Amino acid sequence: MAFGWIDEQARARRRAGLVRTLRPRPAGSPLLDLASNDYLGLARHPEIVEGAAEAARRWGGGSTGSRLVTGTTELHAELERELADFCGFEAALVFSSGYAANLAAVTALAPHGSLIVSDAGNHASLIDGCRLARGTTQVVEHAEPEAVRKALSARPGPAVVVSDTVFSVDGDAAPLAELAFVCREFGAGLIVDDAHGLGVLGTGGRGAAQAARLAGAPDTVVTVTLSKSLGSQGGAVLGPAGVIDHLVNTARTFIFDTGLAPAAAGAALAALRLLRREPERAARARAVATALYDRLTAEGHEAVRPDAAVVSVRAPSADRAVRWAADCRAAGVAVGCFRPPSVPDGISRLRLTARADLTDEQIGRAVRVIGETRP
Amino acid sequence: MAFGWIDEQARARRRAGLVRTLRPRPAGSPLLDLASNDYLGLARHPEIVEGAAEAARRWGGGSTGSRLVTGTTELHAELERELADFCGFEAALVFSSGYAANLAAVTALAPHGSLIVSDAGNHASLIDGCRLARGTTQVVEHAEPEAVRKALSARPGPAVVVSDTVFSVDGDAAPLAELAFVCREFGAGLIVDDAHGLGVLGTGGRGAAQAARLAGAPDTVVTVTLSKSLGSQGGAVLGPAGVIDHLVNTARTFIFDTGLAPAAAGAALAALRLLRREPERAARARAVATALYDRLTAEGHEAVRPDAAVVSVRAPSADRAVRWAADCRAAGVAVGCFRPPSVPDGISRLRLTARADLTDEQIGRAVRVIGETRP
Repeated sequence: MAFGWIDEQARARRRAGLVRTLRPRPAGSPLLDLASNDYLGLARHPEIVEGAAEAARRWGGGSTGSRLVTGTTELHAELERELADFCGFEAALVFSSGYAANLAAVTALAPHGSLIVSDAGNHASLIDGCRLARGTTQVVEHAEPEAVRKALSARPGPAVVVSDTVFSVDGDAAPLAELAFVCREFGAGLIVDDAHGLGVLGTGGRGAAQAARLAGAPDTVVTVTLSKSLGSQGGAVLGPAGVIDHLVNTARTFIFDTGLAPAAAGAALAALRLLRREPERAARARAVATALYDRLTAEGHEAVRPDAAVVSVRAPSADRAVRWAADCRAAGVAVGCFRPPSVPDGISRLRLTARADLTDEQIGRAVRVIGETRP
Repeated sequence: MAFGWIDEQARARRRAGLVRTLRPRPAGSPLLDLASNDYLGLARHPEIVEGAAEAARRWGGGSTGSRLVTGTTELHAELERELADFCGFEAALVFSSGYAANLAAVTALAPHGSLIVSDAGNHASLIDGCRLARGTTQVVEHAEPEAVRKALSARPGPAVVVSDTVFSVDGDAAPLAELAFVCREFGAGLIVDDAHGLGVLGTGGRGAAQAARLAGAPDTVVTVTLSKSLGSQGGAVLGPAGVIDHLVNTARTFIFDTGLAPAAAGAALAALRLLRREPERAARARAVATALYDRLTAEGHEAVRPDAAVVSVRAPSADRAVRWAADCRAAGVAVGCFRPPSVPDGISRLRLTARADLTDEQIGRAVRVIGETRP
């Protein structure tokens, strides 16, 4: 049996209580959602839904090919222009996922002989980008500019520093301005993944780079997802036109992947336009996060002060985190549950999403249920 | 300037005539399309378009989270059941792209200490899967079972053999039955990417594995795309339930990626159901490929006999291939153009897609234009 060894691993997972199971959700779930990454509550918004449907009708169910052959429609170009303009960058390039965008940015910008300085808390897609890149990766202490400085000074030459802007697990922010300062000191490039910052941080949700006055900087490249605040699917890389052109010519996850489906491009574009019209959604997501944090800590929960729209609440153990999340769900509130091996530090937690469209009543209900089900 | 080195590379590309440029296409292109991967002509089919639009309306613009949190809807589960059933496998798992599906399959099934035997002509996503996997990769001669046997016999122990079923560049098929035979001899697993086989090969388009009587085999894993014959976006892994469960628990591009957008799942599901109802589309795609090949070779072009729906026509050089494709386009026919570094052997060619919905008149027109523009 070629794959017989898998069964032993499955048994070990069961023994450790770490089995993951898919739980298909119905279209009209009665649960209060604090688990998704739909930070602005746009995934079901009529304008976003219509953006998807209209794009499918006009352009078809798929983009039909790789971006360099038939997979670039005028809709893709329009989305890229508006996304770059909104975030304050010269150019943007859209991918089928944020994962693909991160693989592209890191591999294309860290060639053989270069140094990659990577935050210990980075997302799996950045880590895989480092592993695929031809450069040499050095992992440094989480959110610690001095560690970055030390790594850069120890190995002169071409380098990039790679970091999430908002870390998915704890919702804490990277010290972007300090990282940029250190990068400039050493002539290093800065690649940041703003998956959890776009739509939440910066003026009207323009993202963490804009908030840190790094938008449009010649040595800064930002990756984003279209699947979180923008309620769609896909990812993008934002940066100087020369960098984007370099990705078009060299990034394997761009060249050898089918272009993003028109419906996803249409939904993201509709969300972007809605966010321009209703910039207060970004501030509301942050305010909901603060409210959740304040009320949970007031009730004695151990939580991380949120820098964006993710609130992380510590759980006593992996199995009790799972039980806690299950009890919340049974009481009508869906929360995320992060546990090994998804958490770099081995600490299990509940992960709450502060959606901009949560009402005060819903926030209160969520806090009450989380308190009542506490292990 | 952190990214100053990019400019020098861009200049070198210009000097070599290898600059790639995005060419956004309009919704109502007047070009005859022989460039896309829309093998069955389904991307613009009303049922597929409505499948996408209806799914967006019912489920939203995005899936809102990773598959293990909120990103699995009942629609995803339905698509996975029907895809597995159609192709004759126990289970299926849907990804946001075929690229992600390939990274998942190879990395999850080739752990530390294992051997990966990889065909020299494999797609970039399989190659990147090999590079990310913890196993040791040995690249072997293209489509050569004896080379696989030699590699497996030289290094006993857990192993997987990785191959495209239909190679994208030349449209030739892998010797699947022979590969499976060699794999069984050594207890190795077989992972094949059927991106260009699904919808074209096998009974009613059930794919290359079904055609080779490998569907449902306990030691065979098949990856597919939803973005080619099915006219949508996304990818999937098909295999034994235990293998799929293993991917749910361990594959990073599954766990850490947002779930496929509902519109893409809906379009793929609609295409699958249409293909069940109209199985003759698969045979028609193959017949169109044979007709293109017969007529082109009769006129003296050097082409590869097509095993599926891709017809590869050799060009004298990279720059003349580019000119040839541009001249075809100017004459109203869109064809693909593959050249270094996208071709493993350095040989440039036109790549023609034999869409099932091409009429005989269109085939004739394409052959005439390709002949008239020949460099």
